Amino acid sequence: MSEVQESSSQESVQEHLQQIVEILEKQRLVEGLVHKQEMPRHELVESLVHKQHLAELQKRLEGLHSADIAYILEALPLEQRLAVWDLVKVDREGEILLEVSEPVRETLIAYMEPAELVAAAETLDADELADLAPDLPEDVMEDVFKALPVEEREQLRAAMSYAEDSVGALMDFDLVTVREDVTLEVVLRYLRRLDGLPDHTDQLFVVDRDEALKGVLPINLLLVSEPDRLVGEVMKREMLMLNPVDRAAEAAQAFERYDLVTAPVVGERGRLMGRVSVDAVVDYIREASENERLKLGGLRQEEDIFASVWDSARNRWTWLAVNLVTAFVASRVISVFEGSIEKLVALAALMPIVAGIGGNSGNQTITMIVRSLALGQITHSSARALVAKEIVIAVLNGLVWGGIMGAFAMFLYHSAALGVVMTAAMTLNLLVAALFGVFIPVLMVKLGRDPAVGSSVLITAITDSGGFFIFLGLATLFLL
Amino acid sequence: MSEVQESSSQESVQEHLQQIVEILEKQRLVEGLVHKQEMPRHELVESLVHKQHLAELQKRLEGLHSADIAYILEALPLEQRLAVWDLVKVDREGEILLEVSEPVRETLIAYMEPAELVAAAETLDADELADLAPDLPEDVMEDVFKALPVEEREQLRAAMSYAEDSVGALMDFDLVTVREDVTLEVVLRYLRRLDGLPDHTDQLFVVDRDEALKGVLPINLLLVSEPDRLVGEVMKREMLMLNPVDRAAEAAQAFERYDLVTAPVVGERGRLMGRVSVDAVVDYIREASENERLKLGGLRQEEDIFASVWDSARNRWTWLAVNLVTAFVASRVISVFEGSIEKLVALAALMPIVAGIGGNSGNQTITMIVRSLALGQITHSSARALVAKEIVIAVLNGLVWGGIMGAFAMFLYHSAALGVVMTAAMTLNLLVAALFGVFIPVLMVKLGRDPAVGSSVLITAITDSGGFFIFLGLATLFLL
Repeated sequence: MSEVQESSSQESVQEHLQQIVEILEKQRLVEGLVHKQEMPRHELVESLVHKQHLAELQKRLEGLHSADIAYILEALPLEQRLAVWDLVKVDREGEILLEVSEPVRETLIAYMEPAELVAAAETLDADELADLAPDLPEDVMEDVFKALPVEEREQLRAAMSYAEDSVGALMDFDLVTVREDVTLEVVLRYLRRLDGLPDHTDQLFVVDRDEALKGVLPINLLLVSEPDRLVGEVMKREMLMLNPVDRAAEAAQAFERYDLVTAPVVGERGRLMGRVSVDAVVDYIREASENERLKLGGLRQEEDIFASVWDSARNRWTWLAVNLVTAFVASRVISVFEGSIEKLVALAALMPIVAGIGGNSGNQTITMIVRSLALGQITHSSARALVAKEIVIAVLNGLVWGGIMGAFAMFLYHSAALGVVMTAAMTLNLLVAALFGVFIPVLMVKLGRDPAVGSSVLITAITDSGGFFIFLGLATLFLL
Repeated sequence: MSEVQESSSQESVQEHLQQIVEILEKQRLVEGLVHKQEMPRHELVESLVHKQHLAELQKRLEGLHSADIAYILEALPLEQRLAVWDLVKVDREGEILLEVSEPVRETLIAYMEPAELVAAAETLDADELADLAPDLPEDVMEDVFKALPVEEREQLRAAMSYAEDSVGALMDFDLVTVREDVTLEVVLRYLRRLDGLPDHTDQLFVVDRDEALKGVLPINLLLVSEPDRLVGEVMKREMLMLNPVDRAAEAAQAFERYDLVTAPVVGERGRLMGRVSVDAVVDYIREASENERLKLGGLRQEEDIFASVWDSARNRWTWLAVNLVTAFVASRVISVFEGSIEKLVALAALMPIVAGIGGNSGNQTITMIVRSLALGQITHSSARALVAKEIVIAVLNGLVWGGIMGAFAMFLYHSAALGVVMTAAMTLNLLVAALFGVFIPVLMVKLGRDPAVGSSVLITAITDSGGFFIFLGLATLFLL
């Protein structure tokens, strides 16, 4: 990525990061020398070098975009992170706090004085404040709230009242509104009197006296239409409108499908409340997929890579505990058949294969079903066909892969009966995987839960214990 | 989601889907009756009802956005899908083919006549054609290529020359360019002569005679500045520029960080080649996270939910085969210790716990490291600290969870020695998981591979076989 502005590309951010780390390390070296020798002359040198380094760092930081400073703060260990944070001007701190990941934000806020926090928060818009509010100390939020103008206070209250995954949480209040009975010429003159338009302004919102939304005037139409035409003639009356209590995921799908840049948010009696813009949607999509990845990987939340051992360990314990419980159950299932294993020890070596292929296949089914459910593409009439298909695939896979493994078992242990039991157990466990792979996510949706979370753990638990039970059970019945 | 336009919200799309399915089923019922009774009167009725149904369907489809029709096609079984496809007007087919998922696109293209495909393809822009090209038959592409104007032919050739995950693949050619020595008034008059601006036009590109990019003129500045000022005075000379061979993921990160709507793509000697707009970036982000989820779930690619059993099974075989190989290796590790298991059968019941917790913990480490590597936030100096931290966490988790499981084992099998071996094995396997959890993704990056793909399978294979080996090995040494 080439660039004119110094701070733009990712390579360049990484170079900045590298250079900042180098300055910080030189700095520490100087401090280390001084502490070791404790000589007045060195103290003088230190303070000079120190000031030089700080000035260099500060200059470098000033040239960087807030998002880039956030990136660098995340990549620095706590001590260096706070040293850099001290050099950031207070009027940029609010914006940067919005950009950093939550665990890193916590380390910065814990380090800041209340007065500094209030000053940083006051630089933000109401919708940004609402995002930051849960991490701020209560007394700081009270001070900020009191200092707000009435209108923004209302906006903040509104923004904070919506659930985290609702459209209301994505909404901002940067609206430019016009009336439908004026000419485009008047609109153009009105805009020219403004210092600038809000970011991502691709359309103006046309409202009546009661703030009810009548239509939108795309900037593109404003530019290509004759100036003497009326807003009401040019504006579009058909448009996507969001409701603040809609799910954010639905809004994101709409932005993706209809290639939107902004969309109006409308409350009771058609009143225009705010807008959602594509940058908030991009952040939402990225965060949602990030969270899903973390959950699939068994982490409770995003981890500050420099978090203490204790914080990191706690972040991982929930899923380790769940995993141990399911492994313990599987272990108890095996222990029921200890007598059989004692008689035919080959069973112990073969049983993880039966459990493993069930887990893998079940996760494949779940991945496909969860995706189709999320898109709402499974209709009543197609559901039955889907289950039937999964069953046929399970039997096919069982015969093919189970057959191969059965042949291996037969060859390794010189027992045709063992081979047949192996094939039968794998086929049956694949059937279990297919049935629960459809059943679990469908049930979770019926219970109003997110099928993407926990389905994978559940199916693996079932195919593990189920696989051991089926294989050892069949072996006990037919081989001993 | 409320709306004015009928086709906008997701609920509404799903209602449309439901109603279309109902019409299609009524249709089939009528056809079924007729075939059964084979009476001329019925044939007449059938053809009337048939025509009525088709007209109703067609009207409904015409009111829908292309993305919504794509959604409905994906949710219909093959027969009904093709019936609906027949009713879509040919001038919309190109756009809809772009929107549907790849496996569904293949079913539609396979069904279309070459002449129809050429007609559909000719409605598309060069950058869209490039996306569709890999799925079109060669002779169709040749015909389309010949019919293109020279300029678009060049654009198509350029767009097709870039790798799938490069900026060039996201680029479009919808540029509005201006010169820097004209006034804003002239620009406004120039725009008014156009029928419309390209979608997502948030800035005009300022170029010289050689098409070299000199700056960008944000529409917002065009609107709020005095019309007698020159473009060169108002335009921004500092901007993010992309190169067509940059990685698409980097461009996506830039859009996300700097909240962009469009960014210019610049080639040799600063020549403006095209632009990337946020809708392409949103699609890219969504697809990338979708692909990752499919791979983590063990699917090779997105699956048409109505694909044949054979196609679906093949889509899943790669990962099932990999899984079987790793399970087979683990099974062979166990078989080495069959003698020990025969003597102390409790080992068979306990060994999956040791393997399981190692896999879970290793995946946690990998998830965190892959994320930090993707962001480029691991510096040389922080890498060592990270490894040290993962080791400390592994030992901590080993002592805590291994201790609990050791106590269980001691209690269940009345053997303190077995409990100690259990705890030691779990701690050691967690250490293996931590070391390889850092080592595998770092190595993959060094080898120039994507660490998100396959790392999870590898770590699970290592912690399974490793867990069995450590536990059974320790037991053989100290218990027998």
